[in-house]
Amino acid sequence: MRIVERILNGDKRAVARLISMIEDRNRGALKPLSELHARTGNAHIIGITGPPGSGKSTLVDRLVKSYRRQEKTVGIIAVDPTSPFTGGAILGDRIRMGDLSTDQGVFIRSMGTRGHLGGLARTTGEVAKVLDAFGMDKVIIETVGAGQSEVEIASHAQTTVIVEMPGLGDEVQTIKAGIMEIGDIFVVNKADRDGAENTELEFKAMLDLDPEKKEWEPPVLKVIATQTEGIEELREKIEDHLTFLKSSGRLERINAERTKTEFMEILKTNLTNYILERSIDKGKFDELVRQIITRQIDPYSAADELTEAFEIRAGTSNSDDKD
Amino acid sequence: MRIVERILNGDKRAVARLISMIEDRNRGALKPLSELHARTGNAHIIGITGPPGSGKSTLVDRLVKSYRRQEKTVGIIAVDPTSPFTGGAILGDRIRMGDLSTDQGVFIRSMGTRGHLGGLARTTGEVAKVLDAFGMDKVIIETVGAGQSEVEIASHAQTTVIVEMPGLGDEVQTIKAGIMEIGDIFVVNKADRDGAENTELEFKAMLDLDPEKKEWEPPVLKVIATQTEGIEELREKIEDHLTFLKSSGRLERINAERTKTEFMEILKTNLTNYILERSIDKGKFDELVRQIITRQIDPYSAADELTEAFEIRAGTSNSDDKD
Repeated sequence: MRIVERILNGDKRAVARLISMIEDRNRGALKPLSELHARTGNAHIIGITGPPGSGKSTLVDRLVKSYRRQEKTVGIIAVDPTSPFTGGAILGDRIRMGDLSTDQGVFIRSMGTRGHLGGLARTTGEVAKVLDAFGMDKVIIETVGAGQSEVEIASHAQTTVIVEMPGLGDEVQTIKAGIMEIGDIFVVNKADRDGAENTELEFKAMLDLDPEKKEWEPPVLKVIATQTEGIEELREKIEDHLTFLKSSGRLERINAERTKTEFMEILKTNLTNYILERSIDKGKFDELVRQIITRQIDPYSAADELTEAFEIRAGTSNSDDKD
Repeated sequence: MRIVERILNGDKRAVARLISMIEDRNRGALKPLSELHARTGNAHIIGITGPPGSGKSTLVDRLVKSYRRQEKTVGIIAVDPTSPFTGGAILGDRIRMGDLSTDQGVFIRSMGTRGHLGGLARTTGEVAKVLDAFGMDKVIIETVGAGQSEVEIASHAQTTVIVEMPGLGDEVQTIKAGIMEIGDIFVVNKADRDGAENTELEFKAMLDLDPEKKEWEPPVLKVIATQTEGIEELREKIEDHLTFLKSSGRLERINAERTKTEFMEILKTNLTNYILERSIDKGKFDELVRQIITRQIDPYSAADELTEAFEIRAGTSNSDDKD
């Protein structure tokens, strides 16, 4: 059976295979992704991000179990941009999710960085689409860390949860400033530790600094994930946010914007491949590289030269076709 | 006076201005960059990377002072991909380098991530070129962290120094595996702490694992940067590596490869801009976005459609020009 049919029939191994193809940037993934597009748009994409040690993994584990009790199916994409390893290699993740991984209503995948970081954001988006088409009600994108890469990866989420823990120092403040604006819900995890109130107040103070009065006021929740305290409330807040997104028309706007961005990215790759494969004069290219190295020409002027040459070539060959 | 002339006349403020333009992706930076290309290729680009807390900043400070005693000029690019702030904002860096920043033979710049991570690697490469053209003998690219982004940024260096400190746990092992292969010199900083020998042995063991017998055997150095111990040896090893690169013909090969990669990147951007600005039918683009959202078409097929449409348009308009 074809991979798309197998995925639509609920075959997890087919899902895993397609994801591996996506990670490897195997062009064979494009056709299945094309075909699955029509089946996407139903999942609620939830981003969960926070620094290492904030207890995100346990939090996600408990949240997923809470969703399962509600009979929602859940896909989990655990992204670690600092890891050169992918899924199979991160044994810890598999073990940690042990009791979930045998549940037919749950699909777990760890992703590191094969290839470029820039690529990871796109790959994550494509994997989320596969899990969406696979019929998962919720797709959780969990990112380790709290830097720019997390912000980019989180840009695929419709609801973004920022997790912190008490007692992180000044260094974190800097990071927070960068990610506060993407948070829809804030969680102070390990709330039984000293300083939980302080962290909560800091979050609230930073939210108050936002001059823009928002339709959605991001709640700050205290959670003790290891004891499953505050998890139900978190799930309810996530659902509240989805309801808000739908009723305000914002979900539609977010989806439209992202579709446009995503399409533009695909179009750029497509055009570049098309041109580089067919229309660039290889001899000319190599000659220009030589001239750049010897400083006879600079790379910007060389690129202009080749771009202009391309225009003529495309035109000429097309006229030829018509004759 | 024009910015390029001011830079070539040793005006640091002009350098700072051009770098800001590069960071802002201001297209006005392209012409100066083009013009400066002919003056590049003389600096030795040194990458220094390692996890937070490994004492990289102090190490770089001492190394720069050592180079200054040799009457070498030094440019420093301090890159922190997790920081949303750029140069001016990271006050700590400025203070830390206080006594260096008044030295005419030293130029310091901190860079965070404005915009995309993928962009940071490219921006860093361009800034290194500016400092090269500015006449710096050595350009040090210092990156915080030890993940994939550092590997990408370090790809601009000709000599890469990996800094570690004693007593980091298993988590670091995973990261090391990803970056060991890019290291030309390994430093165990804070070598007066417990566990320095262990860290040194670990480094050596990992290097021994490398099945490929290399012409250059990466040395492992013990350094106490705060006490300027081992700094002279580090500088000498860096110089040894440069000598090796030159005598083995490897420097030439590295530079040729990078020129090719860089040129390809510039060409891609150029072509994409060219096409998107002039040749794409905006009405058609918007209509396709609408159809993707309503799932009448998938983004991959839509991109193919637009790519094919472009081919015809370019051909037609070109034929018209000729008539």
